[in-house]
Amino acid sequence: TTKMKIFALNSNQGLAEEIAKEVGLPLGKSSVTHFSDGEIQINIEESIRGYDVFIVQSTSQPVNENLMELLIMIDAVKRASARTVNVVMPYYGYARQDRKARSREPITAKLVANLLETAGATRVIALDLHAPQIQGFFDILIDHLLAVPLISDYFLKESGIDLENVIVVSPDHGGVTRARKMADRLKAPIAIIDKRRPRPNVAEVMNIVGNVEGKTAIIIDDIIDTAGTISIAASALIESGAKEVYACCTHPVLSGPAVQRINDSVIKELIVTNSIALPEEKRSPKIKQLSVAKLLAETIIRVHEQKSVSTLFD
Amino acid sequence: TTKMKIFALNSNQGLAEEIAKEVGLPLGKSSVTHFSDGEIQINIEESIRGYDVFIVQSTSQPVNENLMELLIMIDAVKRASARTVNVVMPYYGYARQDRKARSREPITAKLVANLLETAGATRVIALDLHAPQIQGFFDILIDHLLAVPLISDYFLKESGIDLENVIVVSPDHGGVTRARKMADRLKAPIAIIDKRRPRPNVAEVMNIVGNVEGKTAIIIDDIIDTAGTISIAASALIESGAKEVYACCTHPVLSGPAVQRINDSVIKELIVTNSIALPEEKRSPKIKQLSVAKLLAETIIRVHEQKSVSTLFD
Ligand SMILES: Nc1ncnc2c1ncn2[C@@H]1O[C@H](COP(=O)(O)O)[C@@H](O)[C@H]1O
Ligand SMILES: Nc1ncnc2c1ncn2[C@@H]1O[C@H](COP(=O)(O)O)[C@@H](O)[C@H]1O
Repeated sequence: TTKMKIFALNSNQGLAEEIAKEVGLPLGKSSVTHFSDGEIQINIEESIRGYDVFIVQSTSQPVNENLMELLIMIDAVKRASARTVNVVMPYYGYARQDRKARSREPITAKLVANLLETAGATRVIALDLHAPQIQGFFDILIDHLLAVPLISDYFLKESGIDLENVIVVSPDHGGVTRARKMADRLKAPIAIIDKRRPRPNVAEVMNIVGNVEGKTAIIIDDIIDTAGTISIAASALIESGAKEVYACCTHPVLSGPAVQRINDSVIKELIVTNSIALPEEKRSPKIKQLSVAKLLAETIIRVHEQKSVSTLFD
Repeated sequence: TTKMKIFALNSNQGLAEEIAKEVGLPLGKSSVTHFSDGEIQINIEESIRGYDVFIVQSTSQPVNENLMELLIMIDAVKRASARTVNVVMPYYGYARQDRKARSREPITAKLVANLLETAGATRVIALDLHAPQIQGFFDILIDHLLAVPLISDYFLKESGIDLENVIVVSPDHGGVTRARKMADRLKAPIAIIDKRRPRPNVAEVMNIVGNVEGKTAIIIDDIIDTAGTISIAASALIESGAKEVYACCTHPVLSGPAVQRINDSVIKELIVTNSIALPEEKRSPKIKQLSVAKLLAETIIRVHEQKSVSTLFD
C-alpha cells in the first residue's frame, strides 16, 4: 500500500493541523519563505517519493499570494516524485468569475482550474463551489463536498432554537437548491428573497416569497463577502414579521465592512465554517465557526484508500 | 493587414506609455480593479477581435500580484478573439529559480512559462533572462533581447569617461559572456571576480582575475537585487588599484537595503534600465535609468509586421 502525507500552506494552518490530527498523521515538513524581493521559496523537507500527497490551501485573501504559493508547492511535490498530488481547497478563490458577464471579460475561475492542472495537480477536493458547474472546468478528478449537513447538524443539535418554528431562507434564486437541502434536514419550509430593481438607479426592492410571520428565519448562502445583502435581507425578514433571524454560510470571506455590518444588523447569530481562517479582527461574539476538518479528513482517507467519496456529498 | 493594440498593466505603466508613443499608437483601454476581497477584476474596454495584442507587464515586485494580473489579462485577451497574444515582459520574475539546486525544490521559472502558455500567450518578448536556457522552457515563440548595446552606448556616448582606460568586470563566472559582449563594444579588456569560500562559515574571498590597476572598472550584471555582492566587489576592485568603479545591470530589483548599500558604496554611478520601474524611494542621484522603450517598440513593430527580430539580438 502507498503511503500518504498532508502538507499545510499559509492560508489555513489551523485547519490543516486539525485535519492531520483527524487522519492521525503529523503534518509534512516543508518551508515556505520569501526572498528579499518577495518571491516565494518552497522547500519540502522530507521524502515523498511514491506518496499520495495532500496539500491544504484555501485561495482566500491574499488570494494571489495564496494561489501562487499553492501552484509552486504543487510543482515541488510533482518534481519530488509523489504518486498523486491532491489539492484540498476548502475555499476556491475567483469562483465568482465563472462566466463572461460582459464582453471582453476573463473567466478567471476556469483559468485557475487550468493553472492547477498545469502545475501538476492530479485531484482537487473542494467545498461548496460558488457554482457547481466549476467542477466541469477540470479535466482532472474533483470531489465536491457540501457544508449543509454540518451546518444543519449545528441547528439540529446545538443551537437550542425551536425546530418546530423554523423557516429556511434563500437570499436569491440561485441559492434555492442549497436552502432546499437544509430545509429537508431541518424538516422546515423554505422562503426565497426575490430582489429586483424597479428602475435603473433606484434601490433594489426585497420581496419575500413565503410566509415568515412569527418564524425563526435561517438565511443560508455559500459566501458572505461584504455582508451588505445579508444584513438588508435580515431586516426585510423582520419587517415581514419574522420573530428572529439567523444567518449561515460556508465561506466567511467577510471583506471590508462585513463584520461591522453583521454586528450592527438584526442577525442574531452568523454560523460559518473554517474554510477560511478568521484573523483576530474578523472575530465577533455574533460569529460562530464550525470546523470542516472531520469532513475533509474523511475525504482524504477515502481518496487515499481509493474508496468512493460520493456518499459524503450530501 | 491585421491591426495591433498595446495594453499596459500595473507594473510598468510609464514604460508602456513610452513604448506606445514610439510605436505611434495610443495605449489600449482596459481597467484593472480589485474587488473588496482583493480579487483582480479586468475588463478590456475596446474591441480587439482579430488584432495582434501586446501586453506590457514586468513580473517585478509585487511579483505574485503582477503575475496573476498578467495571466488574467491574457485570458481576457484570448477570449476577446485577439489574433495573437504577445506578452512583453521586460523583467521575468522567478527567473533565478531555474533549476533544482536542492532536492524537492520547485522549478518556478519553468512553472511561470507553463502558466503563461496555459493562460493563452502565443509569444513572449523578454529581456536579459537570468539564464538563456529559460527560452527553452517555452513551447511558444520567445524573443530574447539584450540590454548590452543600450548600456554600452551610454558609456560610449554619454558617460564622459576616458574610454581608453576602461576594463569591464564580470561579478562571477556566469556573467562572462555578457561582460565579453560589452567589452567588445567598448574595445576594452575584461576581468572576472572569482568568489570562493575557503572553509564553511568563513567569509567569501573575492579574487580578481585580470589587472585593474589604474583603470576605470565597469561591473556588469543582469540583476542587482540586495546589492551586497556588487558593493563588496566594487571595494575589492578599488583595493586592487582600480581608479574608479561604475556598475550597471539590466534589472534593478533593488530590494531591501540595496539603495542604501549603493549610496554607501565606492560605486560612482549605477546604470540600470527601466525594465523595472523605480518608485520614489528607490531613486538616488547615483542611479541612472536608461529606457528600453525604443528597443521594445521596434521589436513589437517587427513582430506585428512578421519580420525577423533576430538582428535586434546583439
Ligand atoms: N471577488 C468578487 N467580489 C465581488 N463580486 C465579484 C467577485 N468576483 C466576481 N464578482 C461579481 O459577482 C457576480 C457573479 O456573482 P453571482 O451572480 O452570485 O454568481 C459577477 O457580476 C462578478 O463580476
Ligand atoms: N528571488 C530570489 N532572490 C534571491 N535569491 C534567489 C531568488 N530566486 C532564486 N534565488 C537563489 O539564487 C540562486 C540562483 O542564482 P544564480 O546562481 O545566480 O543562478 C539559487 O540558489 C536560488 O535559490
